[in-house]
Amino acid sequence: MAVYKAPLKDIQFVLTEVLDVSSLAKLPGYEDATPDTIQAILEEAAKLCENVLFPLNRSGDEEGCTYENGVVHTPKGFKEAYRQFCEGGWTATTNDPAYGGQGLPATVGFAITEMITAANQSFGMYPGLSHGAYEALAQHGSDELKKLYLPKLTDGTWSGTMCLTEPQCGTDLGLIRTRAEPQADGSYSISGTKIFISAGEHDLTENIIHLVLARLPDAPGGTKGISLFLVPKFLPTADGKVGERNGIRCGAIEHKMGIKASSTCVMNLDGAKGWLVGELNKGMPAMFVMMNAARLGVGMQGLGIAECAYQSAVAYARDRLQGRSLTGPKNAGGPADPIIVHPDVRRMLMTQKSFTEAARALALWVGMLIDEAHRHPDAKKREAADDLIQMLTPIIKAYFTDMGSECANLAVQTYGGHGFIRENGVEQLVRDARITQLYEGTNGIQALDLVGRKLPMKGGAAAQRLLGEIAGFVGAHKGDEKMKEFVEPLEKALGRVQDAALFLMQNAMKNHDEAGAAASDLLRLMALTAMAYMWNRIVVAANKGLATGGDKAFYEAKIATGRFFMARILPQTTSLNHTIKAGAATLMALPAEAF
Amino acid sequence: MAVYKAPLKDIQFVLTEVLDVSSLAKLPGYEDATPDTIQAILEEAAKLCENVLFPLNRSGDEEGCTYENGVVHTPKGFKEAYRQFCEGGWTATTNDPAYGGQGLPATVGFAITEMITAANQSFGMYPGLSHGAYEALAQHGSDELKKLYLPKLTDGTWSGTMCLTEPQCGTDLGLIRTRAEPQADGSYSISGTKIFISAGEHDLTENIIHLVLARLPDAPGGTKGISLFLVPKFLPTADGKVGERNGIRCGAIEHKMGIKASSTCVMNLDGAKGWLVGELNKGMPAMFVMMNAARLGVGMQGLGIAECAYQSAVAYARDRLQGRSLTGPKNAGGPADPIIVHPDVRRMLMTQKSFTEAARALALWVGMLIDEAHRHPDAKKREAADDLIQMLTPIIKAYFTDMGSECANLAVQTYGGHGFIRENGVEQLVRDARITQLYEGTNGIQALDLVGRKLPMKGGAAAQRLLGEIAGFVGAHKGDEKMKEFVEPLEKALGRVQDAALFLMQNAMKNHDEAGAAASDLLRLMALTAMAYMWNRIVVAANKGLATGGDKAFYEAKIATGRFFMARILPQTTSLNHTIKAGAATLMALPAEAF
Repeated sequence: MAVYKAPLKDIQFVLTEVLDVSSLAKLPGYEDATPDTIQAILEEAAKLCENVLFPLNRSGDEEGCTYENGVVHTPKGFKEAYRQFCEGGWTATTNDPAYGGQGLPATVGFAITEMITAANQSFGMYPGLSHGAYEALAQHGSDELKKLYLPKLTDGTWSGTMCLTEPQCGTDLGLIRTRAEPQADGSYSISGTKIFISAGEHDLTENIIHLVLARLPDAPGGTKGISLFLVPKFLPTADGKVGERNGIRCGAIEHKMGIKASSTCVMNLDGAKGWLVGELNKGMPAMFVMMNAARLGVGMQGLGIAECAYQSAVAYARDRLQGRSLTGPKNAGGPADPIIVHPDVRRMLMTQKSFTEAARALALWVGMLIDEAHRHPDAKKREAADDLIQMLTPIIKAYFTDMGSECANLAVQTYGGHGFIRENGVEQLVRDARITQLYEGTNGIQALDLVGRKLPMKGGAAAQRLLGEIAGFVGAHKGDEKMKEFVEPLEKALGRVQDAALFLMQNAMKNHDEAGAAASDLLRLMALTAMAYMWNRIVVAANKGLATGGDKAFYEAKIATGRFFMARILPQTTSLNHTIKAGAATLMALPAEAF
Repeated sequence: MAVYKAPLKDIQFVLTEVLDVSSLAKLPGYEDATPDTIQAILEEAAKLCENVLFPLNRSGDEEGCTYENGVVHTPKGFKEAYRQFCEGGWTATTNDPAYGGQGLPATVGFAITEMITAANQSFGMYPGLSHGAYEALAQHGSDELKKLYLPKLTDGTWSGTMCLTEPQCGTDLGLIRTRAEPQADGSYSISGTKIFISAGEHDLTENIIHLVLARLPDAPGGTKGISLFLVPKFLPTADGKVGERNGIRCGAIEHKMGIKASSTCVMNLDGAKGWLVGELNKGMPAMFVMMNAARLGVGMQGLGIAECAYQSAVAYARDRLQGRSLTGPKNAGGPADPIIVHPDVRRMLMTQKSFTEAARALALWVGMLIDEAHRHPDAKKREAADDLIQMLTPIIKAYFTDMGSECANLAVQTYGGHGFIRENGVEQLVRDARITQLYEGTNGIQALDLVGRKLPMKGGAAAQRLLGEIAGFVGAHKGDEKMKEFVEPLEKALGRVQDAALFLMQNAMKNHDEAGAAASDLLRLMALTAMAYMWNRIVVAANKGLATGGDKAFYEAKIATGRFFMARILPQTTSLNHTIKAGAATLMALPAEAF
């Protein structure tokens, strides 16, 4: 059976030894977010995830959501779990205290998101979407809208959605057809069909607040004519109660491969009343701010799934007795050895472990960068942090979710045939993880974002910020004999990134297809390099821990896992170096009809 | 929606231009298997797969098998399809004419298996298991058993199973507990529990013939005390009718990730009457002959799924309009370009295409080797063919199924969010494909078979036969300027295989864990090299086709796809070269409790 315990010790290690979480409390507004407070909050979150959310994960998958006449029921137990979730204040963690939020740093939100997803990805979608809607409103809504809606989204009595996709448009939002007609009272009458709306309809909250992309009748074509509207399921009364039913209704829910307990809705808008959020025809930039935050959130889902998969695989590999070690019995008294003695099983477990630990460090580092970018008094520091976030967002979204799927599949493979059986819970991780590579922009779109937007950003300065950060580390630790086996491969990987970037600069201007052709491989190359950088920082922290007499086994395991990553994962950069330079012609040679 | 048309033109190209299928009719017993006859048979099989089996694939997945009181119902339409399958003689293709079979070469069976799996993997399990049972009985059964059972398995009125796995033993069959007590009449009374029995119970045939591994009360421990028994669901009467119900019953069916229309049964044997197949305590070697054949069959499933995934992805990529080409609109009159214009979509399609085409060539080559190994009058030729089959079996099983899953996932990725929706049919391919990496020995076990059994076989002579075959090709074509871009990377890959083999020879004797640690990566390295070899042979054939004025577009597409493989897939061998030599220490350093 799949198992999950929140990796609190590891999160603490990253926050306090690899990073410096105590710096958060020095940022204005985060004075209360001391390391001790953060630890106490994460411990509470861990209890909720382990004891309330995780036990509903399998049953939620089997039962799924059900639809009848516009009403969607979540699986048994979800309502009660959501009540506890709200009562514990978990819908309010990073929200503004002005609206009842706890005002915690984004770093804390990241750590909690990992745990929620690991425990129950489907459940996490409901508060996750609400949080996205909260952020969009908080940043772009009028004071009136904020005062009416944000407290309800914060205490969780109302939930939110993001309504972007339509049957004819996914990636290409310029094709949106949903229309908004201005009304005499300043509101809009909105009609159209939205699909793939997560949490579009459900029975967890008394109201659902939809943020809808639509275009005015006279709006310019393409993405420059798209505006963002707030469309509530029930129109609120002036005193914030639920009033009249609005013209937005769920027409069906999708039958999906996974996250079956998360409702994915067709939403039909028929003259629904809505209010503009932000400026007319500026819906896309507003949505993009949200999207980038959401992409990091999806990356965290990849990590969460990988962690649950890893723990489940380890538990099975320790328990399952089958065959004997190649070097002689290790459990001579038993009928066979536990399969963790086999090198090939180790290969799978170490692949998972070497991903989750460095990915967590990378993600929490980005969390801290977000807090710096929002709150640091020095504008230059804010800009530097934002550059790194911009660069790392597509990398984290795509690489973490690709690896989430890989780690889930490795768990199934560790279980052997038993992994294919639903009751054992690991095949669900494969099915649930699969969506993370698709939504909030497919991973191919992330790669295009990286090569098309992020690398050329500020004339390449943001990219240089990331590469410079790593080069700085290499320079500082190159002389350290103890670090040699880690710093040298990192330096080589960095060289390969620079080599690939040079190739792109020389070729992509002449032929834009060269950028598209290199995109996915370059993203992977940069992701592996960023992971190698985090492994270096982890090993530095572990060496320090060992030197100061800390938990020897814990720190030595960190170093051994880092060594595995350098020797067995990072070499992928050698073949990526070749394939990036293979050029677009190998992809574009065939006419479409030759496929 | 997923689509499938049997790739008849491609199969014909491989059989007649890459390989020399006309040589089959020169083997004794295969005189009728002329190229024309084979083509006619494949055309008929294609019709059945496209028109009867493929339309039941989605509905079969949604409905699944149902269990009630020991009775298993297959999904709607399966009974009628099975009737047509039997009437068309498709249960009899490669079976011995002495028992009513058509006596066709294995090569033809391979091509048909690919099509059946591509159309409906779940359906294919039923005749597939029967065929395994047929082969085991044909090779090891007494004349009496053969005369009674083989005609029924051949005409499909009865079906077969292989009962190996028990709750406590999967890979490690030495742990089998099912007991067989000798009876006065020469039969055995068999009791125990078997799990994961494909086609263990269903409603397609009037009887089910189980081949069961069990041990006698006084048998030696481990695998040396295992015998093989035939246990029918209904005891046949002397005249071959269905008689008394035997004590083997289905206790439950598994709820699985995929192949839901294939019943996977818990089989309880309670004093069931059975007959020995082959010699006492020689069940394992008998079963292993079957297993190797079955492993090739599973490899073909990987190819079949990949083909259906590829075709479905191409159809969607041509139809779906979204975004514009990076080099300017290609469908200026439409709202957007078809997504096949995007290099990253091409990358996914070309990855699939470059796999299926060379995999098909490799598989059909092995099919022809099997026919040679069975029928060639020259013992040396038979041995040479068998050496190659032995080497290629774990490679085909593991690599083809890993790639089947990868190609299915690439189809989902090409569909974007729509790929996650069950109705669109591509996520089913991911779920169905997943089992192929697990059953008939997990892919990790295949890798161990390769390094532990096949490489050292005959003092390395079988391995040398494979590498020598490739080296011979390289030597013969090295001077050909036209082939340079294909032969050179092949030669380099071959060098990496030799390098890795040398590393193993130097290290694995001292520490057996070194073999286990390198196994999966070495299998992948050898697979990629074998694929590069097949691409070389395909390109030679395509160049010949072009020179003789054949279908220009067809042959040029072959060459362009081979070029893609060399430039974008084969470079994986560079990183495998590093990871193989990373050694066991990186995997085994951690104590089990440190995970």
